[in-house]
Amino acid sequence: MIKVSVLYPNTAGCKFDMGYYLEKHMPMVQQKLGSACKRMAVEEGIAGGAPGAPATYVAMGHLYFDSTDAFMSAFAPHAQAIMADIPNYTNTQPTIQISEVKM
Amino acid sequence: MIKVSVLYPNTAGCKFDMGYYLEKHMPMVQQKLGSACKRMAVEEGIAGGAPGAPATYVAMGHLYFDSTDAFMSAFAPHAQAIMADIPNYTNTQPTIQISEVKM
Repeated sequence: MIKVSVLYPNTAGCKFDMGYYLEKHMPMVQQKLGSACKRMAVEEGIAGGAPGAPATYVAMGHLYFDSTDAFMSAFAPHAQAIMADIPNYTNTQPTIQISEVKM
Repeated sequence: MIKVSVLYPNTAGCKFDMGYYLEKHMPMVQQKLGSACKRMAVEEGIAGGAPGAPATYVAMGHLYFDSTDAFMSAFAPHAQAIMADIPNYTNTQPTIQISEVKM
């Protein structure tokens, strides 16, 4: 199982519309990726590790697939539509990471 | 539900012993945190978002709690022992983030 994490940095002046992300963006992504996307998760940054430190990421979205190939095949045909929706909920540039689920 | 993410940066020359982390560190953490820790997850970085780009994080560990207070209460008495084990599996300095689970 692999996990695609989309990490939105908590930069100065950044905006993130969690309502739009949860109610519009992620359901659209799920609909476009179909059954290849096994699970989704979303978190909102609250705090950093040190007392009073801000969260490194204002929000994180995660998509789970059986393999990187399964992700690529499902994502490629819809990449443009999915990416084009990003400015509707944030002005940040997300960091994307593909990871293997170990536990 | 809150999620404590421990993100290990994929810096030049970094080392991360995934075997030790999965078999020794995380079970020790679960044992010390007890039932306050509802769930754990571990991922190993494979790739970044752009073709050929490296993963931003070599590994990520996640711990789930009912609240930030539940995490603080469970973690504080064992913080020193848990932190002291980090050099046994990595030479990186992790980034810690507390997030609220939204989906």
